[in-house]
Amino acid sequence: MSTPADRARAAIGGDLRAAARLMRDLDDGVPGAREALAALYGRTGAAFVVGVTGAPGVGKSTLVDQLVAVYRATGAKVGVVAVDPSSPFSGGALLGDRVRMQRHATDDGVFIRSLATRGQLGGLSRSTAAAVAVLDAAGFPLIFVETVGVGQAEIDVARMADAVVVVTAPGLGDGVQALKAGLLEIADVLVVNKGDREGAEAALRDLTTMLQIAERHAWPGEAPRAAPTLVRTVAATGEGTAELVRALEAARAAPAAERARRRRRQAASQVVAIVSEITQDAALAAIGGDETPGPFAPTIDAVAARTLDPWSAAERLAAAATQTPVIATNSAEVIK
Amino acid sequence: MSTPADRARAAIGGDLRAAARLMRDLDDGVPGAREALAALYGRTGAAFVVGVTGAPGVGKSTLVDQLVAVYRATGAKVGVVAVDPSSPFSGGALLGDRVRMQRHATDDGVFIRSLATRGQLGGLSRSTAAAVAVLDAAGFPLIFVETVGVGQAEIDVARMADAVVVVTAPGLGDGVQALKAGLLEIADVLVVNKGDREGAEAALRDLTTMLQIAERHAWPGEAPRAAPTLVRTVAATGEGTAELVRALEAARAAPAAERARRRRRQAASQVVAIVSEITQDAALAAIGGDETPGPFAPTIDAVAARTLDPWSAAERLAAAATQTPVIATNSAEVIK
Repeated sequence: MSTPADRARAAIGGDLRAAARLMRDLDDGVPGAREALAALYGRTGAAFVVGVTGAPGVGKSTLVDQLVAVYRATGAKVGVVAVDPSSPFSGGALLGDRVRMQRHATDDGVFIRSLATRGQLGGLSRSTAAAVAVLDAAGFPLIFVETVGVGQAEIDVARMADAVVVVTAPGLGDGVQALKAGLLEIADVLVVNKGDREGAEAALRDLTTMLQIAERHAWPGEAPRAAPTLVRTVAATGEGTAELVRALEAARAAPAAERARRRRRQAASQVVAIVSEITQDAALAAIGGDETPGPFAPTIDAVAARTLDPWSAAERLAAAATQTPVIATNSAEVIK
Repeated sequence: MSTPADRARAAIGGDLRAAARLMRDLDDGVPGAREALAALYGRTGAAFVVGVTGAPGVGKSTLVDQLVAVYRATGAKVGVVAVDPSSPFSGGALLGDRVRMQRHATDDGVFIRSLATRGQLGGLSRSTAAAVAVLDAAGFPLIFVETVGVGQAEIDVARMADAVVVVTAPGLGDGVQALKAGLLEIADVLVVNKGDREGAEAALRDLTTMLQIAERHAWPGEAPRAAPTLVRTVAATGEGTAELVRALEAARAAPAAERARRRRRQAASQVVAIVSEITQDAALAAIGGDETPGPFAPTIDAVAARTLDPWSAAERLAAAATQTPVIATNSAEVIK
């Protein structure tokens, strides 16, 4: 019987079944999986990772489907990690993606992994990062990470990408609402999909104006960024896909210094997201469930009864939650 | 000059300027503010907290505006905490809310607080919880917490509420997409707003079907929940608002055991969210910025260079990040 370490080696050799199995091992917490992934990490970094995000219903999935078709036509292997941070139930909610992706289901050059949150336990950033790392190490030169929505989780995932495509569509709300999505600031490419619908021209005009305003902003502590490229698409027909591919290739060809800065920022975002998840898991375990109360259950009872405030409770829990022994991983073990 | 503790006492006495000032103190990390809030927490628990969430553009803000008008007509004081977890920039992005809320701006019985994320530092759950606690202690019997989007942050905020209203609208995507929003599971009331538009009937039918399927699910480790009440509204004209109010009042009248369970769950959610934010802040501080690298900056460089994997880096950082001294707060200090 093969171990996660065996699977990691096989995945690096291009064995996709081993890659899929390793991702499952990681999600299931199989012993040795985390270490296998850590070892495999030294073989990552070659892939171009494209985050695709936007509100539900804008047509992200159809757009990714079109992009996959274009890139597959060039012979390149393409990975897709479809992340649904909004669904607490894995499986069913992503049925739509599975149906949609059927077109590529029998193509060995396309690897699709759907991820939903697993109950309240978070872990989504970790699972996403793991899936991307495995595909990267397995030699996929291009990986799409598709996420739903506008929350912090999506921003975290988007910041793991080498380029971020923010998708919007006409009729999703007025200009102020669109700006509220707050994703303008993280976009390298801004797509108005369903570009043949009424209101598309107005949406493009509004976004052009907004980008002129938004340009002045930058992430705190970071250098100002170039304004995103604005692209109009009709994903259902493929219109605009070529222009979108050109915008992505321009992003891929960013100067080395810019790329290094971005990779460092990715590393920081990724590590912080994992830290947050580790602590959250530890905190939930310390509290326990209704039937199996943990050591911190009385603390929660005190907060519910208003005899202890949640901030003091959180500080105590944070201090206790990370006192668990850390599995040391020697960085020299990284497979080079 | 008054201190945060003075302001907390004044807020409990119903002084809204003091309440607003205390919220700002908390966001700005003014010394003594956290302790003042902890002390004030013993005076909370009387308010009925209603979470209102949904995708951008569904008309949440207009709906809350209508609800505020209805409840104000009964003479009750109403608090609104408008949370935008998608915008990394406070201020500008919420301009729309300010404009919208002008109708109530001169009404002393309505208190509106807009919150956006402050850079990458998170803290939104903390700020939201603090604003709700201050309004609760200040004697507001009803508080709306309005959040954008479908991410984990919104689910966290929604779980802080005594009742959750999920708002959708026709034309935001097909049935599968709507289900992907994953908010069905947390809704006590499910609103189809813009109910006079084409597709509203179909949306109501689809949601009825989905609720029949979703009913079988429940949060892991929790008892199955009653199906949410489905309400059709036209927030722009006020149609359906009375029905929505009835649904909210039914939720407010939940049995004591159900309410106690919910309050305990709220306490757990809130504490875990704060734990996650504390750790995230500590991790970001340990990493530092481009110009002011922290002690963990070399660890991030190693991850970016692929000589260290992010999971090992996160474990080290998580262990180090929470070793900071915890400010002890004696629960006996809680103002009763």
